[in-house]
Amino acid sequence: MKLKVIKIGGKLIEDKNILSSLCDALASLGERFVLVHGGGVMGSHLAKELGVEVKMHEGRRITDAATLDIAVMAYAGLANKRVVSALQARGVNACGLSGCDMAVVKSHKREVKDIDWGFVGDVDMVNDEVLALLLDNGITPVVSPITFSAEGDLLNTNADSVASAVAMGLARRYDVELVFAFDKRGVLLDVDDDDSLIETITPELYAELREREKIHSGMIPKIDNAYKTIEAGVGSVRITSHEDFNGGTLVIK
Amino acid sequence: MKLKVIKIGGKLIEDKNILSSLCDALASLGERFVLVHGGGVMGSHLAKELGVEVKMHEGRRITDAATLDIAVMAYAGLANKRVVSALQARGVNACGLSGCDMAVVKSHKREVKDIDWGFVGDVDMVNDEVLALLLDNGITPVVSPITFSAEGDLLNTNADSVASAVAMGLARRYDVELVFAFDKRGVLLDVDDDDSLIETITPELYAELREREKIHSGMIPKIDNAYKTIEAGVGSVRITSHEDFNGGTLVIK
Repeated sequence: MKLKVIKIGGKLIEDKNILSSLCDALASLGERFVLVHGGGVMGSHLAKELGVEVKMHEGRRITDAATLDIAVMAYAGLANKRVVSALQARGVNACGLSGCDMAVVKSHKREVKDIDWGFVGDVDMVNDEVLALLLDNGITPVVSPITFSAEGDLLNTNADSVASAVAMGLARRYDVELVFAFDKRGVLLDVDDDDSLIETITPELYAELREREKIHSGMIPKIDNAYKTIEAGVGSVRITSHEDFNGGTLVIK
Repeated sequence: MKLKVIKIGGKLIEDKNILSSLCDALASLGERFVLVHGGGVMGSHLAKELGVEVKMHEGRRITDAATLDIAVMAYAGLANKRVVSALQARGVNACGLSGCDMAVVKSHKREVKDIDWGFVGDVDMVNDEVLALLLDNGITPVVSPITFSAEGDLLNTNADSVASAVAMGLARRYDVELVFAFDKRGVLLDVDDDDSLIETITPELYAELREREKIHSGMIPKIDNAYKTIEAGVGSVRITSHEDFNGGTLVIK
C-alpha cells in the first residue's frame, strides 16, 4: 500500500488561513498519510509571553525544564489539537500522537559533550505496529515532535528527524514517500525564481549540482538526509509547498 | 470483560509525588482501565503566568478564546503527556487522547442563555468503537477534558462529565465500574473523620441519609450523577482515594 509521511512546519499551523488551505489539500489527497508537525514559532511565542528566556547555541535551542513544559504545551497540546480538529472538521479521522502515546517514538536524551542541550531527544525507535493498527483502521496519525525516553522523560525533538524516522519505520510495511512541505515550490536552482524548480533529483544530478555549487547551502542537509532515508527503505522524498503534495521536487535513487 | 473508568482530578497531576504514587497504584491494578483526567489547577496557574484573567460566574469558569488555548495547552498538552509518560515508564501502554482524536468525545458548545460560557462543551457522544480498538489491543486510553464539536471547535469540558459519558459509552461493551478518585477515602458520614467511611451506598440508604441530612452537600450532585450513570448501564460507581481503586465508597443499584 502507498503511504505518504508528510512533514509540515510549525509556521504553517500558526497562521489560521494557511492551516485551513493545508487541511483542505490533505483532505482531498485521496491517499493514506501520516502527518508530522513542528511547532517552533508557537513555542517561542509562548515562552516570550511567560517570560521564559529562549537559550540558543549556534542557532539551536537549549531545552531546560521550563522550555520543555512550554514545548509540550505548544506542540503536543495546541499545535497538535488544532491540526487534528481541523482535519476532523474535513472528514479525515485524525488521531494526535506524541512519542509517549503507545510508545510511538522512543528517543534518548542527547549526551552532554561540549554543550548540554537539555531535554532534547534523538530518535531511537518508531513503533510501526501501532501506527499500522491506526492506519489499517482508517485512522490518520498526526505526530508531534515531543518524544520520550525509556526513563519516562518527555523530550523535545527535531520534527524533520521525527518525520524521517517515522517514514523509515513505516517503510517496513508500506510503499512510503516522505514529503517535506514548506513555503517554497520545491528545490529551486535560483531561490528568487519560482520557475527554476528542479522536478527530479537523482544521485548523479545531485553530485553535479553540488560540484557546480548550484544547490542552496540550506538544502544540502535536507537532500543528504533524504538520501539517508532512501537508503533505509523509503521509496522517494518530495520537497514541496504545503498546497501541492504531488508536485515540487522529487528526490529518487 | 471488567473495565474500570477512573477519573482523577488535575490537582493530583500537578504534584509530582502524588502523580507518582497514583501511577504506581494504576500500574499494579491488574485490571483493564481507561483514565480520564482534569487539569483545572494547571490551567489557572498558566493563565495567571500569561496574565489572562480567569472569568468566573457562580464558581464556574467562563472560557473565552485565550482561556481555551490555555486549557488545550495545559490539559491536552502538559497534563495528558505527563500522565501518559509516567504510565509508560511503569510498563502501562498508555495513549493520550483528547475529544478530537479519532472523534472520541463529541460535544456541542453550550447554548447562550443568561450567560455565555464561551468555548465550553456538553458531551453528546463517546465513540466506544475506537476506545475498544485500543483496549482490545492492550492499550490504555488516557482522556483529557478537551472535547470537540461537529464544526471542528475544541471545547473545554467538565472532566467528571467526560468520565461519566465514557463509562456509559463503554458500558455497551464491557462490565464497567466508574471510579472517582480524589483526596478523601470516600464518602464520609463526618467529613473530619476518615473512619466514618460509608462502604456501600444503596438507593435506600442514600434516601435515608439525605432525609437525615447526613450527606455533605458537595457529595449530593456526585451521587445523583452516579445513579444517572448506573441507570444508563454502568455497573457501579466508586468514590475513593487516589491510592486505593478498590476501596472507598461503592455506589450500587
